[in-house]
Amino acid sequence: MDFDRYDRIRPIRWMGDHLLLLDQRRLPFVVEDVRCDDSDAVAAAIHALVVRGAPAIGISAAWGAVLAARGVQAADGAEALAALGPALDRLNAARPTAVNLMWALARVRRALAAAGADWRAVLEAEALAIATEDLAANRRMGELGAALIAPGSGVLTHCNTGSLATAGFGTALGVIRAGVAAGRIDRVYASETRPWLQGARLTAWELLQDGIPATLIADGASAHLMKGGAVQWLIVGADRICANGDVANKIGTYAHAIAARHHGVKVMVVAPSSTVDMATARGEDIEIEMRDPAELLSVAGTRTVAEGVQAWNPVFDVTPAALVDAIVTEKGVVVHPDAAAMAACFGAV
Amino acid sequence: MDFDRYDRIRPIRWMGDHLLLLDQRRLPFVVEDVRCDDSDAVAAAIHALVVRGAPAIGISAAWGAVLAARGVQAADGAEALAALGPALDRLNAARPTAVNLMWALARVRRALAAAGADWRAVLEAEALAIATEDLAANRRMGELGAALIAPGSGVLTHCNTGSLATAGFGTALGVIRAGVAAGRIDRVYASETRPWLQGARLTAWELLQDGIPATLIADGASAHLMKGGAVQWLIVGADRICANGDVANKIGTYAHAIAARHHGVKVMVVAPSSTVDMATARGEDIEIEMRDPAELLSVAGTRTVAEGVQAWNPVFDVTPAALVDAIVTEKGVVVHPDAAAMAACFGAV
Repeated sequence: MDFDRYDRIRPIRWMGDHLLLLDQRRLPFVVEDVRCDDSDAVAAAIHALVVRGAPAIGISAAWGAVLAARGVQAADGAEALAALGPALDRLNAARPTAVNLMWALARVRRALAAAGADWRAVLEAEALAIATEDLAANRRMGELGAALIAPGSGVLTHCNTGSLATAGFGTALGVIRAGVAAGRIDRVYASETRPWLQGARLTAWELLQDGIPATLIADGASAHLMKGGAVQWLIVGADRICANGDVANKIGTYAHAIAARHHGVKVMVVAPSSTVDMATARGEDIEIEMRDPAELLSVAGTRTVAEGVQAWNPVFDVTPAALVDAIVTEKGVVVHPDAAAMAACFGAV
Repeated sequence: MDFDRYDRIRPIRWMGDHLLLLDQRRLPFVVEDVRCDDSDAVAAAIHALVVRGAPAIGISAAWGAVLAARGVQAADGAEALAALGPALDRLNAARPTAVNLMWALARVRRALAAAGADWRAVLEAEALAIATEDLAANRRMGELGAALIAPGSGVLTHCNTGSLATAGFGTALGVIRAGVAAGRIDRVYASETRPWLQGARLTAWELLQDGIPATLIADGASAHLMKGGAVQWLIVGADRICANGDVANKIGTYAHAIAARHHGVKVMVVAPSSTVDMATARGEDIEIEMRDPAELLSVAGTRTVAEGVQAWNPVFDVTPAALVDAIVTEKGVVVHPDAAAMAACFGAV
């Protein structure tokens, strides 16, 4: 399939001696890169949310390690690793809770530890591999997911799971890109995703860049949209997938999924296999992160709610496996997920 | 029940020789009245959305008619009506689609037509009656609705159906006020109601004024809230109720109602009997008004979405009667509404 036509956004660009990060704080109104010439600049950009999305953060950190190595003289990888230690620690601390950040830097450390005199080339190859594998996984998920969609379908997505959150192509948005490329998807709807508006600010912009016209809706309008027959699939990402197939994802996903089931709209969850957590039995075992109520009291910097009003601001919700028709990972598709089907694909705990 | 304690907001105050309208454009940050000394000032205030909510608009227009009569000399009501005609027409045109505006002015015209030399007193009595009857209907609905709620309940409401939209007390918010006064409701949640944020801007403020602490949630968080068991009733207003009990209300209501059914949360619709339209058989016969997509592209005056993005912006959705547990009007409660139950309460077409 001609994926390239629909995959023009690269939030992370390695330029040989410096790194360009698309400044996601300023999208969609200003499209501008932040240039990083050393690893501390990368750490600062990660911390400041210039780059967001777990895979994108990990890839950025790996390139940060390459930048950190530029002034280092070392006989082999072990010596280089010792010299790079403080810089890698600073990258690791840029977003302490981002699993992919730790995972990517651990890969870098392992590669260096095993490297000889060619450690510099090994390090750069490892960073490139982390980025390349992420893109390949996304395209593979795109193919697998798109194959489930009947020609002429409309789809709804939530939050941003696209090129901006990954090396490129995206997870749920990757399936949408692949479905459009394959002529299976005719209509794309994006819900705005309060309170952070990732759907409105990022997804709508991202799809527009790739010539995939998306129609924005209020989060509360999804059920009315489905009733009219405009969408056949709800396609979302995941922050964690449990051993029984329960899916934690951005707040609002669960409401969309209930409305989907009510209207016979199918639900597809798209995420790399690293998102599958076979050590967590079920959704009830996930602690849902609560964020500052202030995020609901203002919109785009403008206060909208009276002083003294309380708000309840969970980041995620859990969609039970029973509401999910397919979980798509680069390792394969789990149809009608449950504990047995998940174990068959991802192994027992 | 001690309703007064929870009913301190009056968006429309008749001062004997002028009218004060609480400026709802500036809430919740500026609490200030617009003073109207003549009927054209009232028409301008209605047009400019100083006052909103169908019942509140009708009441304001009736007081506008009283102001219009101040300079008029007439021997009886018919003569006064002829003299007032142009002013009443201007009031009627202030919001051409508001049914209650036409309804209230028709009442004023009928009262005048039948009046003798005391027409000025008749006119003022009619305006007062329109306001008083609205408040009484709201308090009656409050009692009827609150009686359905078990002590210790939590409730979720959507949009603004409160004092601000009526003479006072409100419809769905009236039931919530009455339920709090009766000690039946412990917890009130309000969804922010994108794209206009009436829940965030108006409902949260209004309840705070009456000492009823409400917790604001994102529209997409309602299903997750219900899953946790925090609410037992979804309580909403209605813009139109069909002969079969289908309910048109602010966009987002239907999604909340589906989530409510999924979790065993009950759904109450509260609206004056004037909202019941026995001439419309079912929800599918209602044409849903579409508004400017631009309303989804900005929030509180700040543009949030890239140029070129399309949006889909229906104002209302339809909740089928099968998802509604009770329709509460001042004439009585229809439990498990369907065509037969509706006809029994409101008469056949």
